Amino acid sequence: MSEYNVAIVGATGAVGTRMIQMLAESSLKVKSVKMLASARTAGTKIKFKGQDYTVEETTPNSFEGIDLALFSAGGSVSKQFAPEAVKRGAVVVDNTSAFRMDPEVPLVVPEVNAEALNAHKGIIANPNCSTIQMVMSLEPIRERYGLGRIIVTTLQAVSGAGNRAIQETMDQSQAVIDGNPVNPEILPVAGDKKHYQQAFNVLPQIDVFEDDGYTHEEWKMIHETKKIMCEGDMNSDAIQVTATCSRVPVPIAHSESVYFEVLDKSATVEGIHEAIRNFDGDILEDDPANQIYPQPINAVGKRETFVGRVRPDLENKGSFHLWNVSDNLLKGAAWNSVEIAEYLDKMDLLYVPGFIK
Amino acid sequence: MSEYNVAIVGATGAVGTRMIQMLAESSLKVKSVKMLASARTAGTKIKFKGQDYTVEETTPNSFEGIDLALFSAGGSVSKQFAPEAVKRGAVVVDNTSAFRMDPEVPLVVPEVNAEALNAHKGIIANPNCSTIQMVMSLEPIRERYGLGRIIVTTLQAVSGAGNRAIQETMDQSQAVIDGNPVNPEILPVAGDKKHYQQAFNVLPQIDVFEDDGYTHEEWKMIHETKKIMCEGDMNSDAIQVTATCSRVPVPIAHSESVYFEVLDKSATVEGIHEAIRNFDGDILEDDPANQIYPQPINAVGKRETFVGRVRPDLENKGSFHLWNVSDNLLKGAAWNSVEIAEYLDKMDLLYVPGFIK
Repeated sequence: MSEYNVAIVGATGAVGTRMIQMLAESSLKVKSVKMLASARTAGTKIKFKGQDYTVEETTPNSFEGIDLALFSAGGSVSKQFAPEAVKRGAVVVDNTSAFRMDPEVPLVVPEVNAEALNAHKGIIANPNCSTIQMVMSLEPIRERYGLGRIIVTTLQAVSGAGNRAIQETMDQSQAVIDGNPVNPEILPVAGDKKHYQQAFNVLPQIDVFEDDGYTHEEWKMIHETKKIMCEGDMNSDAIQVTATCSRVPVPIAHSESVYFEVLDKSATVEGIHEAIRNFDGDILEDDPANQIYPQPINAVGKRETFVGRVRPDLENKGSFHLWNVSDNLLKGAAWNSVEIAEYLDKMDLLYVPGFIK
Repeated sequence: MSEYNVAIVGATGAVGTRMIQMLAESSLKVKSVKMLASARTAGTKIKFKGQDYTVEETTPNSFEGIDLALFSAGGSVSKQFAPEAVKRGAVVVDNTSAFRMDPEVPLVVPEVNAEALNAHKGIIANPNCSTIQMVMSLEPIRERYGLGRIIVTTLQAVSGAGNRAIQETMDQSQAVIDGNPVNPEILPVAGDKKHYQQAFNVLPQIDVFEDDGYTHEEWKMIHETKKIMCEGDMNSDAIQVTATCSRVPVPIAHSESVYFEVLDKSATVEGIHEAIRNFDGDILEDDPANQIYPQPINAVGKRETFVGRVRPDLENKGSFHLWNVSDNLLKGAAWNSVEIAEYLDKMDLLYVPGFIK
């Protein structure tokens, strides 16, 4: 096991701060860390293993001597700097959508498709949060019974839109309780034209709309799931996926209502339970008689995906429901990224192919 | 058009207060009103068309001389007093689940199956809130294209559990903002064993669990939808329905993510739009380019069902998504009940068959 010089790009963000925490708790041997962000937050102090680090502005030269760069500062930052990092010999694990659909870039949830890491050329993409917890809950079922159709409705936390979206939701909540007006400025999508109240409300829009009426978040769930579960083919018809994504007034941890068809029609709830229970990274919380089911507030700060409410469609054999919950900032982002790095290390793949140090 | 003596049973509740408001705004000619509730709230004053009424304790004799009794005081109250009311010549519109599955009792959403009123024997059941807005959004589509399979996930407001559940959610929200502990006592289900935090959380349980892993709310959505849309047959296989019901921290107005298959595979989004636009009681809010879609906060206090996010499953022809929102206390309860009474009046059916006045 080698020692690594690690850079965190977007170190002051909701995901970045958790990447630092996950890195501190990781099995990776960290020789040095570098905290990178935009000029706006450069100079901020951040602690890593009890020591203070000063956040620096990201430049191409920031990556000189870096072995591993974890990116979570928005797609445009990744597009600009990830190639610069790779050019300088740093393996990039990118938590934005910048490279996810690039056929040269593996899109990885380690428990599901770690083998895709073998083909990396310097950049590995971390899937979208809502995709990760869905494939985490479905992969044990796919392994055991095969998967056909997936129909998902998400109930996503506001932290997916960053720390400012959490603050906006809490401020709006206080305003509503006090009978004061709210002035939405961020949600549902910071960069979109209109903003709506999220407190005590549901918004069926995450990310911008595509021309076909789907949001880009829904598009991601469809194509990322295929790329991860169907050997890299984002347009595979081996499984069919369709999605509706909504935002609920919950700070952290997404919930998903997943309906799915298995290929082996002899599948049972007991068999699905067993598969989930034995799957690394999943925790089964499914005991209706004792009102045990996954809840967002119980998943905050945990790395696992929690799965419950498994039950058959009573009229269509081989079709089932499940309900999953996971911390969108951890398994949905920071933890999955650091876990990818741990797998790269264990698989002796934590280097840029062809780069001579 | 006759004039009626009307009783409201459960006059002080979340639905009861809105029944009084809907009755005041109704086309029904009201000769007198009687406000009934439990002994606990008897003596409370309630206004109707500017005049004060004193709430009385419900007894069998409360219904002497009453022509129309609107019930919303819980299933056990309906079971006890609805037959007493009918015995005394009062037509009962019951907003509880007490009689919904009784084959002798029509279960009615007037825009969908008003013709079922013809067979009433004194009691008409008002469906569950989550069922009503789903059939309101699907009936125009069924009429035009036929319906096969329905897969729904609900995001329901806390007012479905009454005024105390709204208060609990607001109190918990303040406690969470202030960093104080919460002490859940009502939600998810007042009568169930465990209670959980609802503020800033999602609870995938509404009503108690059945032995098959479905909640009773999900059971209701399945069988009430069939009874309403399939000529009174709660077990019809003409359409297949399956459901996941969850509670979100929203005070009023349920949201539903509905996936459905039509029989006529030439169905288009434009055709569905047109059908919804022309359907009495529905409002189409579906303009993604301008971020127009149904939201709970916009539906509060309105009688309509709002429908948007209509789009095809891109891999399964003839399958679509929609998103609906409606005020669960109005179309989901009080307004649908008063509307049933208006239809009974217009159809000359507002009397107990065989009862001589």
